[in-house]
Amino acid sequence: MTDQKAPKSEQTRTLILETALRLFQERGFDKTTMRAIAKEAGVSVGNAYYYFASKEHLVQGFYDRIGAAHLAAVRPILDSETDLQKRLAGVLTTWLDIAAPYHEFASQFFKNAADPESPLSPFSPESEPARKQAIEMHREVLAGAKTKVPAELADVLPELMWLSQMGLVLYWVFDRSPGSEKTRRLAERGAQLTTRGIVLARFRVLRPLVREVHELFADFLPGMAQTAVSRKKRASDPDADFDPAAGADGAAATAS
Amino acid sequence: MTDQKAPKSEQTRTLILETALRLFQERGFDKTTMRAIAKEAGVSVGNAYYYFASKEHLVQGFYDRIGAAHLAAVRPILDSETDLQKRLAGVLTTWLDIAAPYHEFASQFFKNAADPESPLSPFSPESEPARKQAIEMHREVLAGAKTKVPAELADVLPELMWLSQMGLVLYWVFDRSPGSEKTRRLAERGAQLTTRGIVLARFRVLRPLVREVHELFADFLPGMAQTAVSRKKRASDPDADFDPAAGADGAAATAS
Repeated sequence: MTDQKAPKSEQTRTLILETALRLFQERGFDKTTMRAIAKEAGVSVGNAYYYFASKEHLVQGFYDRIGAAHLAAVRPILDSETDLQKRLAGVLTTWLDIAAPYHEFASQFFKNAADPESPLSPFSPESEPARKQAIEMHREVLAGAKTKVPAELADVLPELMWLSQMGLVLYWVFDRSPGSEKTRRLAERGAQLTTRGIVLARFRVLRPLVREVHELFADFLPGMAQTAVSRKKRASDPDADFDPAAGADGAAATAS
Repeated sequence: MTDQKAPKSEQTRTLILETALRLFQERGFDKTTMRAIAKEAGVSVGNAYYYFASKEHLVQGFYDRIGAAHLAAVRPILDSETDLQKRLAGVLTTWLDIAAPYHEFASQFFKNAADPESPLSPFSPESEPARKQAIEMHREVLAGAKTKVPAELADVLPELMWLSQMGLVLYWVFDRSPGSEKTRRLAERGAQLTTRGIVLARFRVLRPLVREVHELFADFLPGMAQTAVSRKKRASDPDADFDPAAGADGAAATAS
């Protein structure tokens, strides 16, 4: 780092973020103002707004932070494990470990994030960086596994896996079992079932249905649509890593 | 009706229920007390409690009412249409028609019902009558269609279809398009995709996966578990309408 001020500004940013999370937890998200966050963090209101343009941006900062910690924590699994089910279970349960300190916050915060049109929704344009990173992680789960994924599903599976992870997060928000152990078991079972589904995709007749399920979500969930469009562009790019023959074959199987 | 008092008491019950729905909508569910509902309906508090033991019971009354209106409205479709996709689309879009007047209430009420442990959740023991009726309707959707459903999936498909209907309801809660037209299109597309999935179930190899998906939900969602257990009992009953040979065949396909 050549910029001497970077660590200091990073510290201030972290201080504001941590203060905000604490206040959200203590007072509720709706009742916490930027003014109160600035005061509690010992910075000026202008300074707080310099780092985070709104309370919503603070939550995005929180998402990014959880995402970065998650990625660092799963790195050993992604770099060494080759069993698909273990890779996926590792990614899901590690997320639960990372998010555990924020469980209480998540449940009171949920009603703000559940609305797909809220900037705090995992489907919002604002959440795109966090979402893309998480989808990319699922792509790596598949890419590094010894179980092979059909080329015609390679672009849709990571998004469907991310979507089912969002289902897991929803379950976790309301899970009151000690240490979220029910959600942990659901993650293990979900990883097992996903793996069995992917193994079954060796039957070509199934693949168009998987693509259609993805298309349905992409057409009706804003964030998914965006990613799907950029994927479609990639798919029609002749340099892209895509097997059009497999796709045509899948379409033929549908018609039979 | 031999009891002369029944119509009057039914009127009072309806009056209390309608008053409660109006107040929930105007003041919010959390802020509306039973006392305020009784006062507004012009009945004594004791009388209101006689009909509904709590605010939660009022919401159950609302669910039952929507369910009964839905069943009456889909009767013509269930009695005459034989195309599976049209039967399912009819059931889903008719529900949207019936629920339309309560759309605003549903979105402010959502945070209470989203918690699976809340008595207002569609998965709660309190919601069992409404849930059973809705699952039964999906059973009838399948039973009256010319597309044949494999015997080994006959017990799990209606519950999975009901579960995806709950997903549709969740989507509808947050849908701000005029006349919920986005949810309507999702219902049509969902019916199409479900039908295609059921048609694909002619491939035996797929069926165990469908059963496992159902088992996962049954093990982790309280209301589903309950129904699954009673179904399992029915299945092990030698007099029950169940094809054990098909089940064994499915299991063999899994192992292959």
